[in-house]
Amino acid sequence: MSASGAGASGEDSLIARYFKPLATDPGAFGLTDDAAVLKSLGQDIVVTTDAIVEGVHFLSDDPAHTIAKKALRVNLSDLAAKGATPAGFVLTLALRGVDETWLADFARGLGEDTSAFNCPLLGGDTVSTPGPLMVSVAAFGRVPQDKMVHRHGAKPGDHVVVTGTIGDAALGLDILRKGKVAAALATDAASRDMLIGRYRVPEPRNALAPAIRAHAHAAMDVSDGLAGDLAKLCAASGVSAAIDIPSVPVSAAAKAALAASAANIETLISGGDDYEILCAIRADAFDEFMRDAQTAGITASPIGTIVAGLAVPKFLDAGGRELALARTSYSHF
Amino acid sequence: MSASGAGASGEDSLIARYFKPLATDPGAFGLTDDAAVLKSLGQDIVVTTDAIVEGVHFLSDDPAHTIAKKALRVNLSDLAAKGATPAGFVLTLALRGVDETWLADFARGLGEDTSAFNCPLLGGDTVSTPGPLMVSVAAFGRVPQDKMVHRHGAKPGDHVVVTGTIGDAALGLDILRKGKVAAALATDAASRDMLIGRYRVPEPRNALAPAIRAHAHAAMDVSDGLAGDLAKLCAASGVSAAIDIPSVPVSAAAKAALAASAANIETLISGGDDYEILCAIRADAFDEFMRDAQTAGITASPIGTIVAGLAVPKFLDAGGRELALARTSYSHF
Repeated sequence: MSASGAGASGEDSLIARYFKPLATDPGAFGLTDDAAVLKSLGQDIVVTTDAIVEGVHFLSDDPAHTIAKKALRVNLSDLAAKGATPAGFVLTLALRGVDETWLADFARGLGEDTSAFNCPLLGGDTVSTPGPLMVSVAAFGRVPQDKMVHRHGAKPGDHVVVTGTIGDAALGLDILRKGKVAAALATDAASRDMLIGRYRVPEPRNALAPAIRAHAHAAMDVSDGLAGDLAKLCAASGVSAAIDIPSVPVSAAAKAALAASAANIETLISGGDDYEILCAIRADAFDEFMRDAQTAGITASPIGTIVAGLAVPKFLDAGGRELALARTSYSHF
Repeated sequence: MSASGAGASGEDSLIARYFKPLATDPGAFGLTDDAAVLKSLGQDIVVTTDAIVEGVHFLSDDPAHTIAKKALRVNLSDLAAKGATPAGFVLTLALRGVDETWLADFARGLGEDTSAFNCPLLGGDTVSTPGPLMVSVAAFGRVPQDKMVHRHGAKPGDHVVVTGTIGDAALGLDILRKGKVAAALATDAASRDMLIGRYRVPEPRNALAPAIRAHAHAAMDVSDGLAGDLAKLCAASGVSAAIDIPSVPVSAAAKAALAASAANIETLISGGDDYEILCAIRADAFDEFMRDAQTAGITASPIGTIVAGLAVPKFLDAGGRELALARTSYSHF
């Protein structure tokens, strides 16, 4: 904190320099006002918020531009899973002080994503903290009225589908922490970089939102681990599921880690930070959904079926044996 | 953080127990989904975000219920100044761990205000941090299309008006820090409590929003000090102002601190955390605005006039001498 002249405070000039260029929506008023305006355009506004904290959701030496991207993308991922089109976001940035090199890199990364995902900055707050860096985002999307896709709504017979590959981010974090996966992939820099990239910069599947809206009975993003998040979706829907473990999509790098016994399938399906979409697709719309995913350039994999009952979802191996999961997801407390 | 069973994680049960009762809007889906829906009702959605950090915006031993109220109210104050009717908010709560007594008190305070201001909780995120407590709120309000009141728009001849009294919160903070004001008011517990209360629990003027929307050319809330915030409003509007210091509304407790030389007028007009509305009222609507304020039960005081020019606003004493301000507002960096 510092004394400063009015209208030219440190905070104001930081905002002007680094963040105003990201406030491209007319409703952001160039970040010169105290609030922004979000036009509804006759649609429902979908609101989600997720924060990331240094040492918890990202590491102290992660690059600033990947921290920025992760903060926005974990929220974009929620919008995608809800079938919503990004409309903008507000940002709270808690910093220990001003490191202009760091801030410039943060703003650069954030700006790349506001453009790529057409999700402009609408406002924000920068505060000083003696503690860890924290980036909190509240993101807004649009859906036609009453068309947000819920966690609940899955029905027996629905196909359980996930996008992308599962477990990469958990392995990437293990590498950054110099764990077993780092040792197993010591000679494979490309795989290590890919897995680390999946931890630092998730790939939200926003291009799939229209297909989710059209064909999913229920959807959520996988942030706390596939097994745990599927259990939540099933609990919300009053159903269970049977998952075919060999169908769970796994990257080549993750397969290498499995082959080297540096990780097991449980690591992958209970690890967090995937930010893929998990959804229950209506059986009669499954083929169309898969075509839509292909058109959107997003890999979607059917991994099982929603079944009646209230049991925790079963994960079955190639021999039909149920995997016993010691833990299914990550919890902060 | 801890391993936990799906659907019954520590985080989920905390949310259910303490925060679900505050999610009274149907669009919050009882906090059981990944996002909320904000209905526009054909209006513009006004979005604002402000965070408060332990040791910066509140003190470590402030009661949990006042921390909750302050976090919400600093955002409600922005909505009020923009002429918006509260519609809901999302909350990010960064905690060092779970103290159920603290959380229960926090949720109680927050719940009192969600009811009092008709501003339901729409969603949130709880994260663990090894650092200071932090509460970040993004709040939403509604205005008729294109009717948000801006910082810019003030015109020469407008009346400069502030609500409530100015400087109390800065004195309250001084008391909590056992400064000069604490000593000066050592025998006056009622005044001390009032000033501390003004620091801990601001009084957003949401009942005045319709009158602001109807009669103000420009408005903002006073969060960083009257002098600095007036300078910002004037700079945004391309105007200046002449303020009559004796007209600046000061509480009896603040007058006692002034009389005891524990504070001076500069302390009051450059201190932060007032969360009163500062506005430029059209001269032809001034009488009606003052009647509307009276009807709303809110004290509004004319303190000067918007004038042409780009000079920093002048604060003039009873003899017409200009007060030289060493600092006009608070900046984080």
